[in-house]
Amino acid sequence: MKKKKIVIALGGNALLRGEQDGTIEEQEQNTYDTLMNIVYLIREGHNIVLSHGNGPQVGNILMRNDAGMELYNIPQMPLDICVADSQGGIGYMIERVLRNVLKEQGLERDIITMITQNVVDQNDTAFQNPTKPIGRTYDKETSERLAKEKGWIFKPSPKFDNLYRRVVASPEPIDIFNVQTIGRIIEDGTIVIASGGGGIPVYIDEKEHVRPLDAVIDKDKASALLAAKINADEFYILTDVPFVYIDYRQPNERKLEFLNKADAYKYMAEGKFGEGSMAPKVQACLNFIEKGGKKSVITESTKLADKAYGTKISMEYED
Amino acid sequence: MKKKKIVIALGGNALLRGEQDGTIEEQEQNTYDTLMNIVYLIREGHNIVLSHGNGPQVGNILMRNDAGMELYNIPQMPLDICVADSQGGIGYMIERVLRNVLKEQGLERDIITMITQNVVDQNDTAFQNPTKPIGRTYDKETSERLAKEKGWIFKPSPKFDNLYRRVVASPEPIDIFNVQTIGRIIEDGTIVIASGGGGIPVYIDEKEHVRPLDAVIDKDKASALLAAKINADEFYILTDVPFVYIDYRQPNERKLEFLNKADAYKYMAEGKFGEGSMAPKVQACLNFIEKGGKKSVITESTKLADKAYGTKISMEYED
Repeated sequence: MKKKKIVIALGGNALLRGEQDGTIEEQEQNTYDTLMNIVYLIREGHNIVLSHGNGPQVGNILMRNDAGMELYNIPQMPLDICVADSQGGIGYMIERVLRNVLKEQGLERDIITMITQNVVDQNDTAFQNPTKPIGRTYDKETSERLAKEKGWIFKPSPKFDNLYRRVVASPEPIDIFNVQTIGRIIEDGTIVIASGGGGIPVYIDEKEHVRPLDAVIDKDKASALLAAKINADEFYILTDVPFVYIDYRQPNERKLEFLNKADAYKYMAEGKFGEGSMAPKVQACLNFIEKGGKKSVITESTKLADKAYGTKISMEYED
Repeated sequence: MKKKKIVIALGGNALLRGEQDGTIEEQEQNTYDTLMNIVYLIREGHNIVLSHGNGPQVGNILMRNDAGMELYNIPQMPLDICVADSQGGIGYMIERVLRNVLKEQGLERDIITMITQNVVDQNDTAFQNPTKPIGRTYDKETSERLAKEKGWIFKPSPKFDNLYRRVVASPEPIDIFNVQTIGRIIEDGTIVIASGGGGIPVYIDEKEHVRPLDAVIDKDKASALLAAKINADEFYILTDVPFVYIDYRQPNERKLEFLNKADAYKYMAEGKFGEGSMAPKVQACLNFIEKGGKKSVITESTKLADKAYGTKISMEYED
């Protein structure tokens, strides 16, 4: 079998599910279940990059940051450092669990976890209307004080009356540091874990310095860009549903086993995918395909190995 | 000039000094000052691995962990995850600042930050008498409860009456994951940041699984092992004094410009170096030299480039 380059984006729930508490034991078990499911790709000899979400973890890091300030007056770290922390902790956990999975399966591969900075355009229009809620909720008074002190932007919580959450922009990723090195490292079969949580958001200023900014990059878009930049053959998104559906959870719901570019854009324009959930995942796959990727698959985190599941997205339907 | 392989261990105060608050601005400035000082090695074309301490940072992460549990009931992460988080945050900061330093200096190098697990022996005698204090202080009642609930070990705080701190073992590092990959990556000039905070401590169990444990590995010993394993030519420890001294801060204090193996062991046996401070640094250098390293230097973090400073440690004094 021809060796392929494959990028696999592990969704938040591949590591931690919404109904769980967030203990390390839960995270390790979920990670194990997810990784068991990609063993077949390693056995087939493909070269693999794993990326991952960090939603619940960086949320907890932000809350701890706040609590540490409140209880012990420990200086808070900015969002870029929190994302970097989460890449370290989650990447390490995935690497260690994967080492054990490979050992159990009699497979030998080296695995390295890289901290990844992803570049955005500081003039991205997303900065004009930040929409991505991060961290804890605050009462009106505190949110107004923080807005003044730190320049943070707040929006009312959709869940709780009179409470506010900080929102940041979600700009498009335009470049990924070390992408050549990543491409080179996987050539000998080493598995690379990179671009966690969409990458640490940075921009390049007028002096060509790298500067951090408060933003959150969509994990699937960043992973798709990484896949395109290393000329990956295939790009998989592992999430919490086994297929892409149109009209999901409506009477006329229909699962899609295949999706080509033209239909994907048609359905997207018709609002047939979940706005903040499935639509950006489909868009990430299209970004990959349009930059030369051959095939994308969106499926449930424990169903990748089962060919009965998963929506295959490609330029054209196969005959 | 012949290209050398050099491992540089950045001490805690290369990133954050004891008298500082710990804000990100302070850390970035210290990091900048330290890195400016290694520019000459990059200009000379050497291949470089940077390691770093994490004391103040992981201390803050542990405190935040505690505060997050207390205020918001967020599950606490174990020590291994906290160390991994600190590697992510600190490694990213060093990488970003170094990118800017290189840009200012007109130097082009790729830089990657790797999350590093370091292996210890779970039967290391250090586990019989844990001595390394971590995290916050607790009153007697809380420390007894935590000892019961979590199996943590506490010792009285040397600073505060009736307060207790958790202690963990500081076992010897015996192996470093990905050391071949690190050696390979630096061959083309890419700078690698690795083994932060002494590495994430793990052991290999009877099933050859990688398991975490609660311990702290000495950063200098881990860095020396890394240097030896990649066959580095030189190993530098950047700390808060410009020389190794015997009888430091005593009337007969004497600075050492050179130190050979025999004298180092003699002084060490006589207790001429600070027990918990300089002695392990000298030992780390000796470990490197004994495994084939040519030269070690211990100096102040901003004085490496100045040849008037630094204690050179080698097998024999040069003629």
